[in-house]
Amino acid sequence: MTKQPSFREIRYNEKRQRILENAARLFAQKGYENVSLEQIAARLKLNKASLYYYFKSKDEMFFLIQMQAIEQANAALEQVLESEADPKEKLREAIKSHVRIATRDYITGTFRQMELVLPRKLMVRVIAARDQFEKNFQKIILEGVEKGVFHRQYWKLAVMSILGTLNAIPRWYSPRGELSAEQIGEALAGFILKGLSVDE
Amino acid sequence: MTKQPSFREIRYNEKRQRILENAARLFAQKGYENVSLEQIAARLKLNKASLYYYFKSKDEMFFLIQMQAIEQANAALEQVLESEADPKEKLREAIKSHVRIATRDYITGTFRQMELVLPRKLMVRVIAARDQFEKNFQKIILEGVEKGVFHRQYWKLAVMSILGTLNAIPRWYSPRGELSAEQIGEALAGFILKGLSVDE
Repeated sequence: MTKQPSFREIRYNEKRQRILENAARLFAQKGYENVSLEQIAARLKLNKASLYYYFKSKDEMFFLIQMQAIEQANAALEQVLESEADPKEKLREAIKSHVRIATRDYITGTFRQMELVLPRKLMVRVIAARDQFEKNFQKIILEGVEKGVFHRQYWKLAVMSILGTLNAIPRWYSPRGELSAEQIGEALAGFILKGLSVDE
Repeated sequence: MTKQPSFREIRYNEKRQRILENAARLFAQKGYENVSLEQIAARLKLNKASLYYYFKSKDEMFFLIQMQAIEQANAALEQVLESEADPKEKLREAIKSHVRIATRDYITGTFRQMELVLPRKLMVRVIAARDQFEKNFQKIILEGVEKGVFHRQYWKLAVMSILGTLNAIPRWYSPRGELSAEQIGEALAGFILKGLSVDE
């Protein structure tokens, strides 16, 4: 049986999350390399020492932000995979829910800087989570291939094309742009589904 | 009238290009940060001092490699734009010729590390060349939109999706993979064109 978190733990976790999101915004604005722990603390009106109560290092913060973003994306995909929808609907939902996550302000900046070098021990965990993301997308497409809804030939290439499209969103998305995240998700899903589907 | 390059100049330029391509391969193998000028010189059986006869710094080399890759891509797109082909053929050719360039060994590694921070003065020139690449693709799509061949709605999003797909190629392409660059180009073009085209 999982122990209920105490009120103290809940508060600790909420505070930790708030620090993370603020750090993520700072990393996005100024670039990871240019942000010091002092600046993160100042933004939150904390002193640097109390930051260490929550995090061991800036690398740990950046690692956790990346992991959260990928894990949210994976959770969304897994929910889609478990649903009863048909393959086309699953793919549409997968794309739309991913766009929703990828366009959240603090996550946009995170995804944009994914290639930064983390210490190898942390990087392998990020890469493992990203591989899982790729596999989840493959499963969705493969289900459609097996049901004869999506083209079998070059289906892996289609997956890479979809991932390329989705991973690039944080590079060009702006919350001040003409299109909402919903519109972007809907339009990309339409475009991708049309490219991939066997004509009826 | 442009002066004919002398034999000495031709030799200088060929040597310079050979150094660049070898440096690019080293950067791709070991990561830019981990390669020293000494290692580049050693690989070419030169001493470090004679490298300076060709390049001012490692940054300059990396900058030139990036610029060459983008300029080759732009030249290919401009050739396509100037051709007499119809919009679908232009887009197919644009995608295929880009895949051909992006899968060349020393360029693959370069595109993979594009996000590395160059000194700002050099970075703005890389970004300008990449903007030109984006504009060239927009022109191709827009021509098709205006001729009623491609969907008008969300056409800019289609451009971003295509660029996302193409820019991701160096992340997953392997010369030891099942598909040749030609097959990849042909398949991606098929997929993209189907997604984008107004049904006949």
